[in-house]
Amino acid sequence: MVLEIVQVQVRPGAGPEFERAVEQAEATIFPRVKGFRELDLQPSLEVPDKFWLFIRWETLENHMVGFRGSPDYTAWRALVGPFFAEPPVMEHVEIPGA
Amino acid sequence: MVLEIVQVQVRPGAGPEFERAVEQAEATIFPRVKGFRELDLQPSLEVPDKFWLFIRWETLENHMVGFRGSPDYTAWRALVGPFFAEPPVMEHVEIPGA
Repeated sequence: MVLEIVQVQVRPGAGPEFERAVEQAEATIFPRVKGFRELDLQPSLEVPDKFWLFIRWETLENHMVGFRGSPDYTAWRALVGPFFAEPPVMEHVEIPGA
Repeated sequence: MVLEIVQVQVRPGAGPEFERAVEQAEATIFPRVKGFRELDLQPSLEVPDKFWLFIRWETLENHMVGFRGSPDYTAWRALVGPFFAEPPVMEHVEIPGA
């Protein structure tokens, strides 16, 4: 299993709207994405308007090829992109689990 | 519960030694630290010689006041500090769990 780690800086004060947009995507877009397992969004305790988004994928390819090359990715970015103050920073690690 | 998220850039090639040092600390230092719950270390899939260290704490104070003000913190830094290529970057988020 692969954990996608994303640092998202949103526009000042846009946190609550961003959180609602992610919840909406979690309920509508992600359930149909191949290899998607779980999503967790948490605000930074130190940095205002910053969030940590953790997404679990079955494989790296499920995220980087399957999802990113799909219309679902376009829909996801349309939903959350307007709240970004800057491009999110993303990395992956492998984690236990099949 | 609080998740400490640390990004650690180690000296080129020092990854395996750093991993062993963290394992040693996990076995010897952390079990006696108040509020420590769990530690996970994973190499970045994108950035060479970079690790993501996730540490779960019962409270933020357990980490920032209790641990950081203790001789155990000095011992921890003595163990892993020599492998750092630069100061680690740390943040916290709250996560579910008591």
